Amino acid sequence: MLIVMKFGGSSVADAARIQNVARRIKRSYDAGNKVAVILSAQGDTTDDLIEKAHEINPRPSKREMDMLLATGEQQSVALMCMALEGMKVPCISLNANQCRIYATSNYSNARIKDINCERIRNELDAGKVVVITGFQGINRKGDVVTLGRGGSDTSAVAVAAKLNADLCEIYTDVDGVYTADPRHVKTAKKLSEISFDEMLEFASLGAQVLHNRSVELAKKYGVKLVVRSSLSEAEGTIVKEEAKVESMLISGVAVDKNVARISIIGVEDKPGTAYKLFAALARKNISVDIILQSIGRNGSKDISFTVARSDLQEALSAIENIKDVIKFDKLDHKENVAKVSIVGAGMATNAGVASLFFEAVYNAGVNVNMISTSEIKISILVDEKDADFAANKIHDAFIHQSSSLH
Amino acid sequence: MLIVMKFGGSSVADAARIQNVARRIKRSYDAGNKVAVILSAQGDTTDDLIEKAHEINPRPSKREMDMLLATGEQQSVALMCMALEGMKVPCISLNANQCRIYATSNYSNARIKDINCERIRNELDAGKVVVITGFQGINRKGDVVTLGRGGSDTSAVAVAAKLNADLCEIYTDVDGVYTADPRHVKTAKKLSEISFDEMLEFASLGAQVLHNRSVELAKKYGVKLVVRSSLSEAEGTIVKEEAKVESMLISGVAVDKNVARISIIGVEDKPGTAYKLFAALARKNISVDIILQSIGRNGSKDISFTVARSDLQEALSAIENIKDVIKFDKLDHKENVAKVSIVGAGMATNAGVASLFFEAVYNAGVNVNMISTSEIKISILVDEKDADFAANKIHDAFIHQSSSLH
Repeated sequence: MLIVMKFGGSSVADAARIQNVARRIKRSYDAGNKVAVILSAQGDTTDDLIEKAHEINPRPSKREMDMLLATGEQQSVALMCMALEGMKVPCISLNANQCRIYATSNYSNARIKDINCERIRNELDAGKVVVITGFQGINRKGDVVTLGRGGSDTSAVAVAAKLNADLCEIYTDVDGVYTADPRHVKTAKKLSEISFDEMLEFASLGAQVLHNRSVELAKKYGVKLVVRSSLSEAEGTIVKEEAKVESMLISGVAVDKNVARISIIGVEDKPGTAYKLFAALARKNISVDIILQSIGRNGSKDISFTVARSDLQEALSAIENIKDVIKFDKLDHKENVAKVSIVGAGMATNAGVASLFFEAVYNAGVNVNMISTSEIKISILVDEKDADFAANKIHDAFIHQSSSLH
Repeated sequence: MLIVMKFGGSSVADAARIQNVARRIKRSYDAGNKVAVILSAQGDTTDDLIEKAHEINPRPSKREMDMLLATGEQQSVALMCMALEGMKVPCISLNANQCRIYATSNYSNARIKDINCERIRNELDAGKVVVITGFQGINRKGDVVTLGRGGSDTSAVAVAAKLNADLCEIYTDVDGVYTADPRHVKTAKKLSEISFDEMLEFASLGAQVLHNRSVELAKKYGVKLVVRSSLSEAEGTIVKEEAKVESMLISGVAVDKNVARISIIGVEDKPGTAYKLFAALARKNISVDIILQSIGRNGSKDISFTVARSDLQEALSAIENIKDVIKFDKLDHKENVAKVSIVGAGMATNAGVASLFFEAVYNAGVNVNMISTSEIKISILVDEKDADFAANKIHDAFIHQSSSLH
């Protein structure tokens, strides 16, 4: 098999962990696999470098920041190869330039455009483990760019896609994807499989095991992903196009507390109002999530929506700034809210899911502020203090009783 | 003017020093110069990285070590650009790959083969200060190689040569080349000029202001060098083909204490003995310096020579190993010796130099073990304890009285 293994920063944080990961790579190599490895920078390296930069210039250019940060992954791959050499595993480290990982020029947030895998293939064919810097690429000038959040996952999936790898293993500090956050829902269970679409909904709902961009890429190129722990031998969760149907109506429950609600009361009810409102927010790069609009009466209506809590203040002032344009009576907001969601590919074909969901919410005695649905998701907005309790009750209703997991 | 400025690791060791160097660069840029900057890794970075590597593998491959160490310079150049950006100086950092610094594949000790300066030139023409990683190159595979000791000096001279720069300024923690080591010879004076050949002799005699390879390169391509301090405004020492003749017979006195003497007593006096002996040492990569051979008598002779003190044990065992081949009575050695030398381009045309030198040594009451001369150098081997005293006496005889310096 041709396997791509990706390890995050905490998995290579110190010499002992590097040796641990090297042993895992060796086992896979000794089992007869061709192995390409993608690494992030060690533990706090990236943060330390950012601090060092800010000491010199609080607002450095993104180009120079990328040039600086890219050294973190290069150190990781060199150190990993030294560990592998110590175990007599033939290996070679390659940075984004040596791997020809071509990306756009958006410094600090570039996207991979293409990878010329000739060098990687040659080294794999020569019997070497190839250890590749994640999180980075080169633009058409040959300058170093970094890929932004979740970048190393994306590197791994992109390399796996271009190599036509049989499997892309993403090693993290959790041992898979759970039906809910185990820190808040004690009865949460690990999923053995999940579909790309469900995983995408999970990621966007705040259960950040894998970054969305990497899942989208895996879905696009049909890369079979496994999320597993670098610290245990547990099986992990397979992410693929069609997940095995388990006797569960949903895949999991997610809670997102990075939410605030904004309500605009008494908006003039005429065409183009919503467009002007959301365009003003888009210009500030503010994403809007759940949207609710009351039915117009007496020539006015109310519009409510949620934004990330960190965007709240900027959103409010953006709206105040267009008061002359859209005209409204009152601008209201609430910060201590949370979004509780269920995700499941089986939902679309099973009419009972919504009713079971709201029954669980009702039994929990939790008040619902807003509701939003997609084909494979139902989200509600509740008071933050009620979120974990509601998630537990919903989880119990759908999953806890189910005995067929794993 | 097109100027190449090179700063060593101690000049960029922390944020404050980086700002200091950035101010210097800005001054040169503001004066209307085109400026290319070559940097080493910050302070102890290289040592820290080596320690980190050895924690994982005491004998890592040189390739991976180079991959690791090259990150040090990349961090320096990015941080320096951030400092320059803070001062509104247009700038760009480039690593060896981006600069197309082509080198041989001798990992950890590569030599620069060529530089394709197109990118550097374009950036300079666009009005930017170009900040380049020293100490590194890429081989024909695109892999990172480092240049070995003094590598950043060599990078600077090579870039200056290829760019046809008007001047290559080497900034160090001393403010120029002195007639003797100021730590041991209190009356040592700074030279305003010195020739390439004299500088080469100085470097090989242990006065390591500039590495030999960089001086050789400067001589070959006629690059005008200046050695000066990054911490003061002092003028520094110009190194060029024909140094201005000052009213001094010599340029300086050097002491090298990294020396040991080996004597092979009673060697069979037949052709090929010396060849076999020194070939055996060359195979172990041991350099031999002063060589003295007694006149053969009764079919046997004595051969004495010096090696670096760190090579002594390996040299002795290499000789023991060929005892059957070259046949000798006794192998003798002495560790606590030192080499005291005078260097001066004027020496060849001035018959009095040798006699003045030995008169000074005689007056110092120092016993001479061995003597070696070249066209512009006389070296003697003395007991280590006598070396500094002899150097002071010699320095006084030649230089101290001279009033025309500076």
